[in-house]
Amino acid sequence: MKKILTGVKPTGDQMHLGNLLGAVLPFKKLAEKNDSAIFIADLHALTSVKSAEDLKRNTHEMALTYFSIFGIDTPVHIFRQSDIPLIPKLNWILNNVTPYSLMLRAHSFKDSLFNDALQKQKEGERNAGKETANEFNKKYKNHPFNDDNEISSQVDSIYAEQFKKVPILNMGVFNYPILMAADILAYDTDIVPVGQDQKQHLEMTRDIAKAFNKTYKTDIFKLPTEYIEKDVATLPGIDGRKMSKSYGNFIGLFDDDKTLKKKVMSIVTDSKGVDDIKNPDECNVFALIRTFATPVRVESIRAKYLAPGYGYGHAKLELLEILTEYLKPYHDARAMLEKNPELIEAKLQEGARIMNARIEAKMQKVKEVVGL
Amino acid sequence: MKKILTGVKPTGDQMHLGNLLGAVLPFKKLAEKNDSAIFIADLHALTSVKSAEDLKRNTHEMALTYFSIFGIDTPVHIFRQSDIPLIPKLNWILNNVTPYSLMLRAHSFKDSLFNDALQKQKEGERNAGKETANEFNKKYKNHPFNDDNEISSQVDSIYAEQFKKVPILNMGVFNYPILMAADILAYDTDIVPVGQDQKQHLEMTRDIAKAFNKTYKTDIFKLPTEYIEKDVATLPGIDGRKMSKSYGNFIGLFDDDKTLKKKVMSIVTDSKGVDDIKNPDECNVFALIRTFATPVRVESIRAKYLAPGYGYGHAKLELLEILTEYLKPYHDARAMLEKNPELIEAKLQEGARIMNARIEAKMQKVKEVVGL
Repeated sequence: MKKILTGVKPTGDQMHLGNLLGAVLPFKKLAEKNDSAIFIADLHALTSVKSAEDLKRNTHEMALTYFSIFGIDTPVHIFRQSDIPLIPKLNWILNNVTPYSLMLRAHSFKDSLFNDALQKQKEGERNAGKETANEFNKKYKNHPFNDDNEISSQVDSIYAEQFKKVPILNMGVFNYPILMAADILAYDTDIVPVGQDQKQHLEMTRDIAKAFNKTYKTDIFKLPTEYIEKDVATLPGIDGRKMSKSYGNFIGLFDDDKTLKKKVMSIVTDSKGVDDIKNPDECNVFALIRTFATPVRVESIRAKYLAPGYGYGHAKLELLEILTEYLKPYHDARAMLEKNPELIEAKLQEGARIMNARIEAKMQKVKEVVGL
Repeated sequence: MKKILTGVKPTGDQMHLGNLLGAVLPFKKLAEKNDSAIFIADLHALTSVKSAEDLKRNTHEMALTYFSIFGIDTPVHIFRQSDIPLIPKLNWILNNVTPYSLMLRAHSFKDSLFNDALQKQKEGERNAGKETANEFNKKYKNHPFNDDNEISSQVDSIYAEQFKKVPILNMGVFNYPILMAADILAYDTDIVPVGQDQKQHLEMTRDIAKAFNKTYKTDIFKLPTEYIEKDVATLPGIDGRKMSKSYGNFIGLFDDDKTLKKKVMSIVTDSKGVDDIKNPDECNVFALIRTFATPVRVESIRAKYLAPGYGYGHAKLELLEILTEYLKPYHDARAMLEKNPELIEAKLQEGARIMNARIEAKMQKVKEVVGL
């Protein structure tokens, strides 16, 4: 049994079926066979969420979402990061063994620098008309941000040139990977399921753990391993492209009946009529049917596609029925939890109690090692 | 009555009479008329102290020193920074409103970069013989580190060139001013007594407080004022230069009798003999006598300088007697506290209790403002 940990940032994004099937359900399967925990990373969200109301709503929504999926009686410890008082202290302790140069290599930091520089450039350009957005993109988009040997000087010269006087980027963004390392190392985590984009942060966590262990001649911090889910089928969105928040083509896990119907009915198809023979394997509606219906029903619908008298409208209505049924347990769970918010709070507190006991034991040792 | 706060970093430096008269006693006078606190900045010391034994010993020595000077019943709240659990959390919260560009301007960071670059250069030079130390110093020592408009690119190009592959500088050094801001802002501090070298950090504290207040449209954080003691007489060391740790010319507050005698007897004088008339105002021994003896005794010794039959040996023995007497209350207090370490621990805990109550009230408001 391994210790598995993942964090979810309450930035207000609604969970959609692509997230659910691509990340959350695979994690749930893995999690339930191990000693697992999910933290709602509200301290991390502070880097971008600057409104108390938003942060509270996002955090609550995140808890509601995860408990609706995992069940309120889940053995997975779901907790709020800010309910673990020792995390920021461990974060500070780790700061002192983390090389400045390591942080300059973080992709997230470089991306933020790039985005900020771009933003600033666009503003400057509107004002001064010196350079077109295209010219700027050409100059910086292919910038060797990923060549570690070149980074610190180049990033900083862009930075210095572009937005020295408009400091948008905050230190939370820069220090993010150290806080993440604290989150992971605090509980002797074995495995962290990550997306490809988070892989580097986990490498940094290992670097920081090694730096601490080396500095203090100890082996107190376990080096965690990333787990990248393979063979995840890509779910198409209502326009046929990969379902994604940024494409705005997603079906939300908690879309209400009206929204769901509207989205399903607007799935892009070709223009074949009711009596035309249709190719199910080239149809966005069928792709979703295949994912969410029972095999028997999938085959029955496939047969209808290959015969006259069955239009896309019929398929969409069937999909709507299938999705409504598929989503019902999640919607029911949510409705129950919405009526009983104290259940969520109690469960979050229980999760925090368990994880606090772990970090307290760990920090006792860390404090001895550093002399606090 | 103002809230006054100062921090002392337990880096293992012994307190000497120059510190005592130049900083600690003036602060004590100010502190006792106000609502004052001193924290032993053990979390800050982690940036450089990498041994548990050292940190513990330094922290204990610091507490012993301050309680010996202030008295174990002092109304000044003396406490350990690491006993305030919410400080690192406030530090993280402040991270998210602190511009990256602000941090690049910190003198302490730039000095560390410079020192590290210098160190690296010296190593490189030993290996490659490319550039002499002098050439390097000429190139970088007058570097416009203080010209804010030039900093980020220039510092980083030095950084990148010189020690990209040997990352000595840690993130504790870089993030130090944010932790310091948390220390100060947590307790609604009005006044922070600082040396000239810390003035910029206090400006940064105000910048961070303003950034928070502006971001969250609040006035929750009070902007602290620095207090720089004026008219502090410079105490000469045993070689006549300003008494200073770095010159190694100091008389330690807790030097034992033997060390004290050795140091006093080695104070540099001219070579006048016992029967020569001496100028007290040009004598290092007399400079110390004038500082530590009663006015009556000062005048009596002045008269002896101006008459034959009184050598520097006599003056030194009188100074030794004067210093022994002056130091006695401190030595006695220390001896008592060394026998009763539980008194120190209890008093540190009392200080922490008081300051924790303050920060807890403050953080309740901060958490509401940010939505945690």
